[in-house]
Amino acid sequence: MERILSSELSAHIGEHVLIAGWLHHQRPLSKLTFVLVRDRAGITQIVASGEAAAQFAALLPETVVSVEGRVVASAQAPAGVELVEPTLTVISVPVGAPTIALAAPVLQESLPTILDHAATGLRHPRAQATFAISAASVAGFRAALDAAGFTEIMSPKLVGGATESGASVFKVDYFGAEAYLAQSPQFYKQTMVGVFERVYETAPVFRAEPHDTVRHLAEYVSLDAEMGFITDYHEVMAMAREAVAGMLAGVGARAPEAVKLLGLTLPTVPAVIPEIDFVVAQGMIEAATGEKVVGEPDLAPAHERWLGEWAQANYGSDFLFVTGYPMSKRPFYTAPQAGRSAYSASFDLLFRGLELITGGQRLHRYEDYLAALSARGMTSVGLEGYLEAFAAGMPPHGGFAIGLERWTARLTGAANIRETTLFPRDRHRLTP
Amino acid sequence: MERILSSELSAHIGEHVLIAGWLHHQRPLSKLTFVLVRDRAGITQIVASGEAAAQFAALLPETVVSVEGRVVASAQAPAGVELVEPTLTVISVPVGAPTIALAAPVLQESLPTILDHAATGLRHPRAQATFAISAASVAGFRAALDAAGFTEIMSPKLVGGATESGASVFKVDYFGAEAYLAQSPQFYKQTMVGVFERVYETAPVFRAEPHDTVRHLAEYVSLDAEMGFITDYHEVMAMAREAVAGMLAGVGARAPEAVKLLGLTLPTVPAVIPEIDFVVAQGMIEAATGEKVVGEPDLAPAHERWLGEWAQANYGSDFLFVTGYPMSKRPFYTAPQAGRSAYSASFDLLFRGLELITGGQRLHRYEDYLAALSARGMTSVGLEGYLEAFAAGMPPHGGFAIGLERWTARLTGAANIRETTLFPRDRHRLTP
Repeated sequence: MERILSSELSAHIGEHVLIAGWLHHQRPLSKLTFVLVRDRAGITQIVASGEAAAQFAALLPETVVSVEGRVVASAQAPAGVELVEPTLTVISVPVGAPTIALAAPVLQESLPTILDHAATGLRHPRAQATFAISAASVAGFRAALDAAGFTEIMSPKLVGGATESGASVFKVDYFGAEAYLAQSPQFYKQTMVGVFERVYETAPVFRAEPHDTVRHLAEYVSLDAEMGFITDYHEVMAMAREAVAGMLAGVGARAPEAVKLLGLTLPTVPAVIPEIDFVVAQGMIEAATGEKVVGEPDLAPAHERWLGEWAQANYGSDFLFVTGYPMSKRPFYTAPQAGRSAYSASFDLLFRGLELITGGQRLHRYEDYLAALSARGMTSVGLEGYLEAFAAGMPPHGGFAIGLERWTARLTGAANIRETTLFPRDRHRLTP
Repeated sequence: MERILSSELSAHIGEHVLIAGWLHHQRPLSKLTFVLVRDRAGITQIVASGEAAAQFAALLPETVVSVEGRVVASAQAPAGVELVEPTLTVISVPVGAPTIALAAPVLQESLPTILDHAATGLRHPRAQATFAISAASVAGFRAALDAAGFTEIMSPKLVGGATESGASVFKVDYFGAEAYLAQSPQFYKQTMVGVFERVYETAPVFRAEPHDTVRHLAEYVSLDAEMGFITDYHEVMAMAREAVAGMLAGVGARAPEAVKLLGLTLPTVPAVIPEIDFVVAQGMIEAATGEKVVGEPDLAPAHERWLGEWAQANYGSDFLFVTGYPMSKRPFYTAPQAGRSAYSASFDLLFRGLELITGGQRLHRYEDYLAALSARGMTSVGLEGYLEAFAAGMPPHGGFAIGLERWTARLTGAANIRETTLFPRDRHRLTP
């Protein structure tokens, strides 16, 4: 008999079917045992009695089983259907009780314990749902950019030459020479604008930052886009809006059960996301809170939260663009605003009061790069391969980057970014 | 006026349109100048005369321009249409003549020169087509696996603990500790079978191999899949067949112009790809060539080529599965064939006589892992996080991996894998 998934049971009421999965939980009552078997699509409730109940009772949680039985409608069953008259086959047995108690509605172990035992902890339905949402988000990102004529690129992660920032890089022994791990695909995605005009990449990036916070990782997945022939950075913002809307559409289409299981309400992306100028925002925050913020070069996390609440209160929006950050806080390739050269033609997108996207227009003239590097006391040594793109003629262009794990955390309400990373890497964690 | 792409011209015959791109080439005749402008979709031919011709003549190749003009049908124009009565606007100027002569039908520079100047060389239409095919292949791979219920995963590239093979890894200074770069997502994709049953990943992997050949890279993109609840490795082979068919479907649907430009004929994937046993294959090769190969633990490249020709001659197939490689040449997690324990339940897929895919069934019982490690003189130290997946109960499973650059090379006929890698990394190359 061909195996079916838990999600397919309701189409087979009255029939005999075969399901397979992991023994998730069992609850023996006086005459009946309710058995839950977990597969990739969800959970099947099985009602066993007599000898069958005894067979289940002898099994450890996480035993891999297949069960043949008859499907019946049941108002009491979580999915509205259950399997009765089960015949059990054991496929594979665990060596002991699981290191993490997976039957709990929410895992009770500490986060470090859960992460140490990821091979088990990730099997919990809430973790499964979280990473289904993460995967659906990436698929939605790609679909939105594909639809807009972007081409996917795969840029190298092992890089030589000069770094973007000079600091916070992981060094690699490269056949006896020194390489480092790419902090972002920035140089490559800009270079590829010269080839495909519009490119994206969904790949890991590496930051050797010593931060040990709930929102920093040493390795994360960056959803990057870059586009040429723009007239100004608002075109980049409009594309970033499409990307986010695509990610939410991807989640809605590909992971509706995960959204339901986690009890999420997906946000709506306004057709035009509200925008506020950095300096104006500082003035508002100072006026409202009394804190001295005007003149500061960046927004503190508390100020981003304040702006998130302001956007919700004034526009009913979970999203807010902050534009025109001071040039001094942006990297050397950033373009200044026209006629306001101390401020950048760039933006952050706040999602529920947390910075989710950074983007903007880039310089595109070779001589502007030389001047920008020189003004920051940097040289073009080690950047020759990158600068050749501009020497060879580049259109006005810009782009943005989204941190996948941060997105998933904000969307699912996870308190710590490590909960939305399959196998997180931080200063203190390199395994499993 | 809204810009249109070169590929959209034929829908606008008789209209005034605006195109934009890079000045690819110009050919002045006595009264007319034929100007080619390249954009992400192809090339537009523009016919200029008088003052307009003089304006074009003053420009360097790769100048970024926009051109307004009238679309006319033209049997002589490469795309069947051309732009006449052009009005030129210069968007961005290069600083000199390009380092690579992009107007040549095929690049004339040596491969090292082209790779040194990738920012320019990648702009050539044949390179653009090659990487459009690469991107379309990845999209097709994902689509095939999505359709079969797989979930995408993003596993870490910075890893601690024990390595898969013990050798050929890049070492990373990880906050003062030692990490290395993942050679494959093998351990993680197997672990994730415990969560999603069917998973795939499309991400970089790293091999510190000192080989300097036309088919090895220090960093490449691996298209990985792993699936649970299999009855045997032929199910994995059937899925690998679907993946390859999906990649070709992706190329056909997303990059038809690139296929045409490179003059490719896409292969057909047989509904069931022919299969030959490793030992049988050796016997055939020995009988045909007189070379002593029976008893050797692996196939040499020349023998793979022989088998490729044999599959073509006997089945009209560009693809051939070779199954049952000796266990001694396969990694410790490989499952043996039932009743034939010196031979593995694994396969290689040859594509036009070159190994493209390696895959097979894996061990799934914890005790089998301990025995396999012990038999190879390995320990479980540093593998605890991986082995927990099997201790926690795992179904029979298997998977495969495809090297993206090797696939693209074989499909496009590129002689060197560096031609199908955007920014290749090898023992001697770390930039640009």
